[in-house]
Amino acid sequence: MIIVLKQNATPEQINHICNKVKELGLTPQVSRGIEKTIIGVIGQEDKLRVQPLEAFPGVERVMSVMKPYKLASRDFKSEDTIFVMDNGVKVGGKQVVIMGGPCTVENKESLLRIAKEVKKSGATFLRGGAFKPRSSPYSFQGLGEEGLKYLREVADEVGLLVVTEVMDTRAVELVSKYADMLQIGARNMQNFDLLKEIGRTKKPTLLKRGLSATIKELLLSAEYLLSNGNFKVMLCERGIRTFETATRNTLDINAIPVLKEETHLPVLVDPSHGTGNYNYVTAVARAAVAAGADGIMVEVHDNPEEAASDGEQSLVPKRFDAMVKELRAIAHVLGREV
Amino acid sequence: MIIVLKQNATPEQINHICNKVKELGLTPQVSRGIEKTIIGVIGQEDKLRVQPLEAFPGVERVMSVMKPYKLASRDFKSEDTIFVMDNGVKVGGKQVVIMGGPCTVENKESLLRIAKEVKKSGATFLRGGAFKPRSSPYSFQGLGEEGLKYLREVADEVGLLVVTEVMDTRAVELVSKYADMLQIGARNMQNFDLLKEIGRTKKPTLLKRGLSATIKELLLSAEYLLSNGNFKVMLCERGIRTFETATRNTLDINAIPVLKEETHLPVLVDPSHGTGNYNYVTAVARAAVAAGADGIMVEVHDNPEEAASDGEQSLVPKRFDAMVKELRAIAHVLGREV
Amino acid sequence: MIIVLKQNATPEQINHICNKVKELGLTPQVSRGIEKTIIGVIGQEDKLRVQPLEAFPGVERVMSVMKPYKLASRDFKSEDTIFVMDNGVKVGGKQVVIMGGPCTVENKESLLRIAKEVKKSGATFLRGGAFKPRSSPYSFQGLGEEGLKYLREVADEVGLLVVTEVMDTRAVELVSKYADMLQIGARNMQNFDLLKEIGRTKKPTLLKRGLSATIKELLLSAEYLLSNGNFKVMLCERGIRTFETATRNTLDINAIPVLKEETHLPVLVDPSHGTGNYNYVTAVARAAVAAGADGIMVEVHDNPEEAASDGEQSLVPKRFDAMVKELRAIAHVLGREV
Amino acid sequence: MIIVLKQNATPEQINHICNKVKELGLTPQVSRGIEKTIIGVIGQEDKLRVQPLEAFPGVERVMSVMKPYKLASRDFKSEDTIFVMDNGVKVGGKQVVIMGGPCTVENKESLLRIAKEVKKSGATFLRGGAFKPRSSPYSFQGLGEEGLKYLREVADEVGLLVVTEVMDTRAVELVSKYADMLQIGARNMQNFDLLKEIGRTKKPTLLKRGLSATIKELLLSAEYLLSNGNFKVMLCERGIRTFETATRNTLDINAIPVLKEETHLPVLVDPSHGTGNYNYVTAVARAAVAAGADGIMVEVHDNPEEAASDGEQSLVPKRFDAMVKELRAIAHVLGREV
Repeated sequence: MIIVLKQNATPEQINHICNKVKELGLTPQVSRGIEKTIIGVIGQEDKLRVQPLEAFPGVERVMSVMKPYKLASRDFKSEDTIFVMDNGVKVGGKQVVIMGGPCTVENKESLLRIAKEVKKSGATFLRGGAFKPRSSPYSFQGLGEEGLKYLREVADEVGLLVVTEVMDTRAVELVSKYADMLQIGARNMQNFDLLKEIGRTKKPTLLKRGLSATIKELLLSAEYLLSNGNFKVMLCERGIRTFETATRNTLDINAIPVLKEETHLPVLVDPSHGTGNYNYVTAVARAAVAAGADGIMVEVHDNPEEAASDGEQSLVPKRFDAMVKELRAIAHVLGREV
Repeated sequence: MIIVLKQNATPEQINHICNKVKELGLTPQVSRGIEKTIIGVIGQEDKLRVQPLEAFPGVERVMSVMKPYKLASRDFKSEDTIFVMDNGVKVGGKQVVIMGGPCTVENKESLLRIAKEVKKSGATFLRGGAFKPRSSPYSFQGLGEEGLKYLREVADEVGLLVVTEVMDTRAVELVSKYADMLQIGARNMQNFDLLKEIGRTKKPTLLKRGLSATIKELLLSAEYLLSNGNFKVMLCERGIRTFETATRNTLDINAIPVLKEETHLPVLVDPSHGTGNYNYVTAVARAAVAAGADGIMVEVHDNPEEAASDGEQSLVPKRFDAMVKELRAIAHVLGREV
Repeated sequence: MIIVLKQNATPEQINHICNKVKELGLTPQVSRGIEKTIIGVIGQEDKLRVQPLEAFPGVERVMSVMKPYKLASRDFKSEDTIFVMDNGVKVGGKQVVIMGGPCTVENKESLLRIAKEVKKSGATFLRGGAFKPRSSPYSFQGLGEEGLKYLREVADEVGLLVVTEVMDTRAVELVSKYADMLQIGARNMQNFDLLKEIGRTKKPTLLKRGLSATIKELLLSAEYLLSNGNFKVMLCERGIRTFETATRNTLDINAIPVLKEETHLPVLVDPSHGTGNYNYVTAVARAAVAAGADGIMVEVHDNPEEAASDGEQSLVPKRFDAMVKELRAIAHVLGREV
Repeated sequence: MIIVLKQNATPEQINHICNKVKELGLTPQVSRGIEKTIIGVIGQEDKLRVQPLEAFPGVERVMSVMKPYKLASRDFKSEDTIFVMDNGVKVGGKQVVIMGGPCTVENKESLLRIAKEVKKSGATFLRGGAFKPRSSPYSFQGLGEEGLKYLREVADEVGLLVVTEVMDTRAVELVSKYADMLQIGARNMQNFDLLKEIGRTKKPTLLKRGLSATIKELLLSAEYLLSNGNFKVMLCERGIRTFETATRNTLDINAIPVLKEETHLPVLVDPSHGTGNYNYVTAVARAAVAAGADGIMVEVHDNPEEAASDGEQSLVPKRFDAMVKELRAIAHVLGREV
């Protein structure tokens, strides 16, 4: 921690800060420059982080030297995290996982048709919402437990894993019964009670980045899962909110190499929400794999016109299949498999 | 709803869209311009909103004519909403309400000292967090029910109302027992299960705008409360996330006149989170009242250096008192009272 | 300057950096913490700023301790800058200046009518564009020198000062002949050749903040003017670009107290561009004065329907007059004059 | 153009708007819905665009149906633009062009060494700044004409084309003498006088997207070049400004497929500015080619520690070479050449 003092900070103020630092069992080092005096603090930065140092008289700015996340960082664990699903599918590592399926589970027949298609193209996970977060109370909110049942039955029939969102602490147990991987949606990335609850389940978990969450905040939310005992965590970049309105969100492609450097956790990309337009999904999915993503999640529907939600960003199975073929070829360039 | 067609849309595609519109009981009106053809849709726009029209072949863009919120809109209710708290304090209307208190409840003594000060200066609500949303799992998470008890006891002793945050659907009942007004925090603005649960309680509710929520989304979240039967809703502008890093957030002052035009619900402003720096709180609080806010919520601490959270944005009681005096004078200019 | 090293930085890398620091005549101070090693650098930070320290092996991050602007900072000059126009009007200080006029100069008659109105209400500056920055090449680009002549003639007839934009280095001399104050538009805030050219003129200058410029960048652009000899500089907050689309821009009200703390230069606010909607201009103008602005610039048109540009954000003279009356009352609360 | 009326718009107001539309030679179509009345306007939308329709009484909102750019759009020209440089190198089409070189021209020797390396790896353009846009007046501003001479001499010796920035209308002629392609920097994307001046030169031009410019605004700035007679225009995505601070900018990968759909002009990507960190450049360059970019521009320096600017985002020649090899393999997957 570096404490930068105001030009007019008094010796008393400096003493006062140093004493507070010492009280916490840390060592202050005062450095008088030509224009500014700074205090470096040696010891565990966390002890000081809870102190509102900016509120101390004479302080201009406080700069953190350490990263605020620990278990999620490469400093804690340098090799990539790889975890194995019950059916042997690996998340992380050489394999680039493909997840496909409808935005929302509508009925069993349609889900089964779509599941067969995505399986055939190479997907190992079936995605689909049973509980849907909708901006408007008047939009379709999902089938609930019925949707979960369809997901489980269809996935078992076709040979896929189920990934689906849980939005409410009270539903964690229920969703865990049906799903292989729990999804924490973008709007709940900082729903801390939900993070804690899911952390305790130790179920494989997909944590989506919030619309306006920094990469640091995403890693801090992952830290909630890890510090509650759940290390089977995959992060997901799904587009952030910016001033640009030509696309629904701005997919942050930079986040992939940044996350691969900062954390050992695998990184998924969702180009469907990242663009909001089926015309752009394939190009951005290719970009994600080329940038080093460990997986892709794409919305697929065999009749987008009739989809209960997000039809405008869903691929038809034929386009999905063509996309996976291109992803496979790009993965090979990088020594990976799809 | 206006459907703009691609330049090369075929007559078959246009027919297909018109048929879909008619199926839903609406009337399509095709308008052939020199360069573009558009289809206007007459009837209840909501029926069409769930249709992913952008996924239809030949469609370039879909533009909504109606606002997606109803109960929260001025079209639904033109006069300002005013609701009366149990002790007779009015929210909305001529009075500008003042809410003050620590970010986090730390212990009863400190809370009591602060409560007496804010009451003396003119506050009618005591704010304070018992359950705290913290980016890091290693930060202090609040006293929980113990904090709620202190809030209730202190508020009763001093003669204030309690406003405090509830973060988890499972805690709504508990917090409702102690609080006069439930606060939905910025990170939970789109925690839809929480919105529904609080909607059903019919308790006075303060809904904070999310860090990257549009004004439209804020009103849609309010719509969740209203459509579940809770009309005692106050909205709160507390700063949005932008590229600017000189302040913790960018307080959206424009949101005040926009909200006053769009909705009948009262609007609070939180300059503490809106700026993140005690040096800027007073200036921005004045701006908020000048712009037409119906209330101000400010963090107050009598020893910011020792505050368990957000000390750098807390006012000491003396500055709080000076601020309220200025707010009162500005309110008078606009024919209002503090 | 603080150089934070990577956890695995080698002694050779640390030596290499320290040697580079010494070569520049500065003193490195190595501080070995439990988890991180940092190098503090004592001496003039500017010498190091031009070095790409992040490119040195072993470096994780470089943190600046000093502010990059000098002449514009409060550290350089603690008292407020006040400058006097040729007719005695003061910019900065106790007086809150009012600037009004059409977005674009359309013809002399209309300009004269509007000028008389704004003068009557209390404005001391006539604003109006002769050269207009337009996103589209097909929009009206302004009357050019003819517009400048009208501005000068009308202002002289009515008793106002002229403030108008110059967009091109080649036009600085021409515009200087007619205008009392040169305006640098938001899109040219980082047109560095223009800044230098205008810096050399020493004419009173209004520097608008760019749509996505940080406050630090605004002050660095001011530094271009000051370091070229022009100290008669007024800064202008006119709204920044964010994700919110309910208004044309998001007026950054926080910027006012931040700028008043960071710099001695006077600060103007433009609520017309800051909101983009005449319905919101008055509320936001009040907020700006309440927050401590040293002036307000507002677009006024007596027939907004016929305005050549920005009619939707122009006030009619009657509303402008009512606004100035409210601003005067708020200014009085703060011990200032309109 | 669709004009949405307020719920309480009077028949007189509707008539007044219709009359104005007719005056302009256009045809209004009034459509009365259950909740809203709208007026569709048939005819050339441009005539209406200059009218501030939002300022008309009774108008709630105006929605544009047409795109505001013409010559730059796919509707105007459906096949991809390909232009040929003097030495036969094609921009646009099957070939993915590679541009490399230092951020700033420092001296001839270093430039020559770097140029030989990038040529060997497969670059066809030498980039390098002679006039540098710098946020601070105290940073190195470039060698000026001397830098241009070095660029020309080195490029001729090695067999490369020169692309370099021009910042000032007064320097267009000078830079045109030395450069093969003129670069318009991000900060000047809306320097409209510069756009017009460069439009008239008809020189091949690289137009960089502004930090906070929408894709629509980028295309409107291109329209300035095209409508002034210059059709040899390449667009460049180089990162936009968002709330994320882990990288210097957020490279908008979505912009590539959006631009390929909207315009016939070739699209370059600059991952050096797009990320600001040499560690992320290769991953993002791969992503750009995978997404369909027509070229890549990368900063290269053989001694980044000594680079006069942007050393932290420069690749050393060895990494540049490895990057180009990967780009070539990805280009092949998509049926293209590097």
